[in-house]
Order: sequence, then C-alpha cells, then structure tokens
Amino acid sequence: MDQADEPLRRAMARALELAARGPAHGPNPRVGCVLLSADGRTLGEGWHRGAGTSHAEVAALDDARERGHDVHGATAVVTLEPCDHTGRTGPCSQALIAAGVARVAIAVEDPNPVASGGAARLRAAGVDVLTGIAAVAGREVLGHWWHAVERGRPFVTLKLATSLDGRVSAADGSSRWITSQASRQDAHALRAQVDAIAVGSGTVQVDDPALTARDADGALAAHQPLRVVVGRRPVPANGRLRGEGGELVHVPTHDPHEVLAVLHEREVRHLLVEGGPTLAAAFLRAGVVDEVRAYVAPVLLGAGLPAVADLGIASIDGALRLEPSEVRRLGPDVLVISRLGAPHTSHPNGPSDPAHLIRTASEES
Amino acid sequence: MDQADEPLRRAMARALELAARGPAHGPNPRVGCVLLSADGRTLGEGWHRGAGTSHAEVAALDDARERGHDVHGATAVVTLEPCDHTGRTGPCSQALIAAGVARVAIAVEDPNPVASGGAARLRAAGVDVLTGIAAVAGREVLGHWWHAVERGRPFVTLKLATSLDGRVSAADGSSRWITSQASRQDAHALRAQVDAIAVGSGTVQVDDPALTARDADGALAAHQPLRVVVGRRPVPANGRLRGEGGELVHVPTHDPHEVLAVLHEREVRHLLVEGGPTLAAAFLRAGVVDEVRAYVAPVLLGAGLPAVADLGIASIDGALRLEPSEVRRLGPDVLVISRLGAPHTSHPNGPSDPAHLIRTASEES
Repeated sequence: MDQADEPLRRAMARALELAARGPAHGPNPRVGCVLLSADGRTLGEGWHRGAGTSHAEVAALDDARERGHDVHGATAVVTLEPCDHTGRTGPCSQALIAAGVARVAIAVEDPNPVASGGAARLRAAGVDVLTGIAAVAGREVLGHWWHAVERGRPFVTLKLATSLDGRVSAADGSSRWITSQASRQDAHALRAQVDAIAVGSGTVQVDDPALTARDADGALAAHQPLRVVVGRRPVPANGRLRGEGGELVHVPTHDPHEVLAVLHEREVRHLLVEGGPTLAAAFLRAGVVDEVRAYVAPVLLGAGLPAVADLGIASIDGALRLEPSEVRRLGPDVLVISRLGAPHTSHPNGPSDPAHLIRTASEES
Repeated sequence: MDQADEPLRRAMARALELAARGPAHGPNPRVGCVLLSADGRTLGEGWHRGAGTSHAEVAALDDARERGHDVHGATAVVTLEPCDHTGRTGPCSQALIAAGVARVAIAVEDPNPVASGGAARLRAAGVDVLTGIAAVAGREVLGHWWHAVERGRPFVTLKLATSLDGRVSAADGSSRWITSQASRQDAHALRAQVDAIAVGSGTVQVDDPALTARDADGALAAHQPLRVVVGRRPVPANGRLRGEGGELVHVPTHDPHEVLAVLHEREVRHLLVEGGPTLAAAFLRAGVVDEVRAYVAPVLLGAGLPAVADLGIASIDGALRLEPSEVRRLGPDVLVISRLGAPHTSHPNGPSDPAHLIRTASEES
C-alpha cells in the first residue's frame, strides 16, 4: 500500500464522523462523504440527514459547488456504496459520474438488493473504485439498518422491565413502577432511537400505554416511533395510543413473521418489542429477537405476571441462553443487554479482493 | 488531641489487620490486640483464631511474654471490648488487670450482654479505658457477628440463582445449571464463609442437595457449614445431606423465627438460606432476611419454578424494595447483592463521651 493511501484513510475517518451525525432511526442508512482533490485537499463534505433529504454524495457535491471547488478528477470517499436507484432522490452513482469524479473509495458495499450496483456502474463508467476501507467501522455506523436490509426484516430488540424475581406486574396487575426513574429514562431514550414499538393488543387493553418517547421532563422527543399493536383485540377508541405520539398501526395477527413483514415493507429498521409476556414469548419462539434489553429492579414481588410467557422449553437443556454484551447500573436497577442467535461474523461485508483492503486505525483497535 | 495519640492510632490499625486474620465464620468475633510500651514500642501482638483458642488479648500477652517483654504499665490496643465472662476461656478483663496493663484502648464496645462489662471492670481496677477508636473499621471487621450478637439472631443472607425471567428451574424441575460455573464457584466460596446453610425439606426431597462447600476442583473446603433442613418432611436416609459435609440439623417447623432461635442457641452468626422458593418466601415474609444475593443468568425459560413463592404482596405499592450494595459480573451472569431493612447507622457503637473519640484514617475516608 503506497503513501498516497494515507489521505484516503484520513478522509474515510472523517466521512465516518460525518455519517454519525445522521439520525440512528429512519429507513435510510447513515452515510458520510468527503470529496478530495488529487493532491489530497478537501473539496466538499456531506452526510445524509434522513429520508427525503440529499444522500451524502449529493450533499458533498453541493458543498464543493458552494465552496467554488471543481470536483472534476476528484476522489469521493464514502462510507457506503453509492446507490444506483431512484428512490426519494436520484441515483448517487450517476451524480458522481456526471460530476466527473475519477475515483470512489467505499467502506461498506450496499447489502440492499434494490439500491446496490453503484460500484459496478461507476466502474463501467471508468471510475476507479476501492472497496473495504474501514469496513468494520463502516458497518458499525450503519447500525441496525445494516442488519435489517441484509436480512430483509427489522432488527428486533426485546425490552423486559422486571423485578429481581422476574415479575412484570404485581398480583393485581399494577406495574407502575417496578423499575427506577433512571431505567425509565433510559427506556425512553431508546424509544427515541427506534423506528417502531410493538405491544400486544392484550397489553393495550390492560395498561393503556401511550408508547411515546419522552425526555426527562416529560416532553415529547423530536422523533416518535411508529406505534404497533399486535393481536386481534381492538385498540380502544379513547386509548392513549390514539393520542399524541407516533403513527398507530394495528397488525391483527399473532405471527411475529407477519408483523415483521408488514414493518419491513414500511422500511422499519429497528423494532422495539415492549410487551407483554405473550408477545415477548411469541417473538422469542419465532426466533426473531436479536437483542434483549432487561431492566432488572432490586424488587421482590412473589406473585404477578412473569416477564415471559411459556416458551415451550421443557427442560434446562432447552434453555434460551443469551450472550450479554453490556451490564450497566441505572440507579438501583441493573440493565443487562444481551444478543441472541448466531454469532456475528466480524467482516460480513469485507472486500472480495484483498488488494483493496485498507484498514484504518479504528479497525486495528 | 495530643501527639501521644498517634502511636495508639497506628496500633489500632495494626490490631484491625490482626483481627482480619481470624476466620469470618464461627461463634466468636474476630479480634486483634497490640500491646504498647509507655514509649510506643510494640511488646506483643495477638488475634483470635477461632472458638476454643485464646482470645486476642491473651494471645498478645503470651506473645509479649515469649518475646521477653514486661507488660507492666503497658497499653493494650484491642479492636473489641475485652470480655468479662468465663466461656471456653477465662475473662480477658482479668487477664489484662493481672498482667498490670495500665491503659486499654478499644474500637468497639461488646454488644453481647453475656460477655460485656469488661470496660467497667477494667475502670474499676484503675485501668484507663479509651473507647471508640476506629469504631467504624472495628465494626466492619466484626462483620455478621456484630449483627447477630446485637440482635440475638443470625445475620440472614438469602441466595437466589435465577434466569433473567426469574425462574429457578425449568418446567420439568431441572435446574442444573441455570447459572454459570463462575457463579457457582462464588456461591461455594460463600458457603465456606457462613456458619449454616438452610434449605426447605421439600427442596431436599426434589433436589437431594449436598450443601457442601467446595473449591474450584470440587474438593471439600476446610470449613463446612452446618446443614439445616427446615420443614416437616423427613430427610431421606440415603440423601446426600447424610454424606460428607457439615453437621446435619433438621428443624421441623415452618416458622423462620423458630429456626433462627435454634440456630442462635447454637451460636450461628451467619445463615445462608439457599432455597427453595417456599423457604425464601417464608423468611422474607417473616422480615428476617438481611441481605439478598441474587445470581441472575442471561437465560430465558418461560416456565418453571419462580424464585420466590407468594409473599402476600397484592399491589406494586407493597413491593419489597431492596438496596443494592454491589453489582458484579460473574462470567455471563450478574450478581446483585442487596440489603433489606432499616438503613444502618454508621456509628452504632460510637463513644458516649466525645473526649474519648479518636478517629483513624480509615474512618475519615
């Protein structure tokens, strides 16, 4: 690898920083782009600010134009393979070709079958394409979007808020509050990051949840997730779910796969399953829970609804064993974040041609 | 406070170190003693090594004698008020008087009504007595002994080993193993520190536990706690409880207060309640659990025995709320250690006369 690659690496690190400015939620990936002159000067920068706004590449081209820079013969350093389709905006591959960009460096190839093909189109137009630069960091900034697009369904986080003896309510059904204010604030911050929240229609009848994302003062967060009710029971006409907050969607099924298909169609990338125990068990049994986020309060109840309904597990040998990735104290409570399913490959989108592999410092750590 | 007190403080810090060498279990307190000459030299040191061996003061006098030192006019610095009764050994107050000790500095006054009175007897014999030196650290080294003697019953630790959804066994009753090896090793290390372990007679029938304390290699620990079976069902003649391990005691009652009275009579200072859910609930309902040690495994079961049986709690307002003092990761599991009951006073045994108050560095932190 020659010295000329150093500016590329620095530019990719910058592009990743820019990408992270985008929203974690929403149908589109977080992408950053830096345009470099042949001698390594920055001509323009851009990042995607959410659905309906410019893609990162177009934002960077606009930025260069506003700065009065000519991008002819420039290198575009971009965290995700430029799209090749016309969605809410035009294809970025063509915008780069039209602008006369000579070279494109990409961290992660697009796993989306609809949008991919940008690299091929660029190459066909005579543009040099380098892939796999900072692939791990590039994957990381894509977050749940990557999982969702690759697998064709939302990434699913199951939230549990239980007593130390695994209850989510007391004998009379009361559950406000088992967990501490610190836990509830954390849960609200999570709601403000996901695309959708699901609850069972039974839970709606019993608890009348609002499913809004609120800050510590109780004010509505800027982003409100889709509110999804799963199951056959109707949503009461005067329920809090019909009040302020995200759009309400009722999916009258008991099949988590159907729910996920509906939500994938709506470009939901990250679904938070909040309860109750029947819905939690249905998603676990269907094998579509990717992450469990358990808020465990130092409280004993001795009776009440258990956190998870029957999973069809007869013996300890069949226990569903999770892999904790993080344990955090939240006031008196403990938050245990665990992953399920097959271990992740660390380079799922790695370069097919090793000659193109350029690693950044963030990947070496 | 004059400069002359500095050697006293240093000697008390040393006496506390010596005290901590004693066993954490057993009927007697951990006590350390340092004998100082009038000019601050150490004449002798001693600590209590467990029931049936010399008390710390006598050990220190013996040490001084072996070293050839005259203790006439010396200061005895001792972490607990010298006893004034004849138990397995003679009263230390009289041993100190007989040896001609001129002054005694004490960290903690003896809460034991049977053994206390040493300070009064020393004063009556013309010995200067200073109390309350490093009282907090002195209390700490006494550990559960202090609680037990002050309250007239053993300190009770309730152990729970549950799945993330609060189960202690799967649907078919199998429970080996929900928690990880790291948790089980920690639990065995705890067994080797307590005086007694209690299980319900129902659990004995179902699980046939051995209730031994073992090291990582499975070898029996040097100290084996008393094995206490609570309840009316008989202990099977061929049960593992009748095999190697601590003495077996069957208390055919369902009343935790009766159990504790029997064990207090046997000078048990620290009782570990290991299960099952019925016994756990009985102790919790009786209000005699001082500490909950919950090993929570990242496992979901969806069915099986809940960790704690009915507590008679109807609503969330009646929830038993604990105060976590420590959260620790043990392999994949999380250990949550919590206290129950009234908040502890920080100076339960503080000096009645402020002029006698001498604080050590350990108290200032």
